[in-house]
Amino acid sequence: MSNPDDSNPEKVTPSAPAAVDMESRAVGGGGVSNIVSRWKREDLLKRGSIASRGFGFVFSFLAFIIMATNKHGDREDFDKYEEYRYVLAIAILATLYAGLQALRQIHELSTGREMFSRQNLAVVDFFGDQIVAYLLISAASSAVPLTNRMREGADNVFTDASASAISMEFLAFFSLALSALISGYKLSNQSYI
Amino acid sequence: MSNPDDSNPEKVTPSAPAAVDMESRAVGGGGVSNIVSRWKREDLLKRGSIASRGFGFVFSFLAFIIMATNKHGDREDFDKYEEYRYVLAIAILATLYAGLQALRQIHELSTGREMFSRQNLAVVDFFGDQIVAYLLISAASSAVPLTNRMREGADNVFTDASASAISMEFLAFFSLALSALISGYKLSNQSYI
Repeated sequence: MSNPDDSNPEKVTPSAPAAVDMESRAVGGGGVSNIVSRWKREDLLKRGSIASRGFGFVFSFLAFIIMATNKHGDREDFDKYEEYRYVLAIAILATLYAGLQALRQIHELSTGREMFSRQNLAVVDFFGDQIVAYLLISAASSAVPLTNRMREGADNVFTDASASAISMEFLAFFSLALSALISGYKLSNQSYI
Repeated sequence: MSNPDDSNPEKVTPSAPAAVDMESRAVGGGGVSNIVSRWKREDLLKRGSIASRGFGFVFSFLAFIIMATNKHGDREDFDKYEEYRYVLAIAILATLYAGLQALRQIHELSTGREMFSRQNLAVVDFFGDQIVAYLLISAASSAVPLTNRMREGADNVFTDASASAISMEFLAFFSLALSALISGYKLSNQSYI
C-alpha cells in the first residue's frame, strides 16, 4: 500500500493483474518488493536447509568412521559397550538420513524439479529432522558418563577416539536441530504460499 | 474463488466489504465459517498446549521426587553417580519451567489478559520448550546404561527407583516435545493473525 492512488485498484484496472495485486497485498502489503523479499527469504531458507543437512551429514559420517574403527583389542573394543554400539547405530542412521536429504535437495536445486509433492515432503522433512536430532543427542549423552569414567582411570587412544566420536555426534545434533527449525518454519508456512 | 462469476469482483461491489471478503478468501476461502474454524483450531491449540505442559510438569515433578528420595545408604545414594545428579537437576529445571508456563497459561485463560506481548512470548515459548525437551532426553538417556548395568548385578529398591525416575523423565520429554511442536506452530503463524 505504498501508493495511495492504488487504494481503489478495481476502478483503475479491472483485469487479471489487479487480482494478483490484491493477493500479494493480502499476504502483507508492499506489492512487488514484498514478493521479491519473500523469494529472497525462501532462497536463504533453502540454502540454510542444505547447509545444515550437509554439516549434519559430515559430522555424523565422521562419528560413524571414528567409532567404527575404534577397535584396539581386549577391553578396548567399542562393541564391548552398549553405549558405543548405540552411538554407532545412530551415527549410521543420521549419515544415511542427512546424506539422502542433502542429495535430494541438491538434485532439486540443479534440475529445478521437485521429486515429491511439497505438502507430504514438508511433514516428512520436519518429523525426520526432529526425530534424528532427538536420537543424536540421546546417543551422545548416553555415552558421555562411560567415557568420563574410563578417562579417570586411563587416558589412551581408545578413550580419545570415543570422546571425539561423541563430540562429532553432538555437532551433528546441532546441525540437525537447526535443520528441524528451518523445516518447521517451512511446514507451517507452506499453506500460505 | 469457488464461484466462477466472482472472478472479477471489482466490477460487482467496489466497496469496503469486498476487500474484507477478498482477505478471508486469500487465507483459505469460505468467509465466516472459515473464521469460526480458525477460532476453534486456536482454542484446541491453547488447550493442547496447557495439557501438554501440565503433563510435563506432573511427570518431571514425579521424576524429581523419586530421584531426590532415592537414598538408601552406602553405594545406594543417587548423589554418588553423576548421571543421577544430572537426572535430578534437569527434573528440577523442567518442573520449574513447565509449572510456571502452565500457571501463566491458566491465569491468562481465567482472566483473559495476556501478561506479556504475544510476539516475544511465542519465541520464548518455542525455544524454552525445545531446549527443555532436549535436556530431558539427554538426562534420561545418560542414566539408562548405568541403571541397566546395575540391574544385571542386583535388582533392589535403589535400581527400581532410578528406573522409575528415568521413565518419568522420558514421559516428561514426550509431553514437552509435543508442547514444542504446538509452540512452533503458533510461532510461525502469529504474523498472519
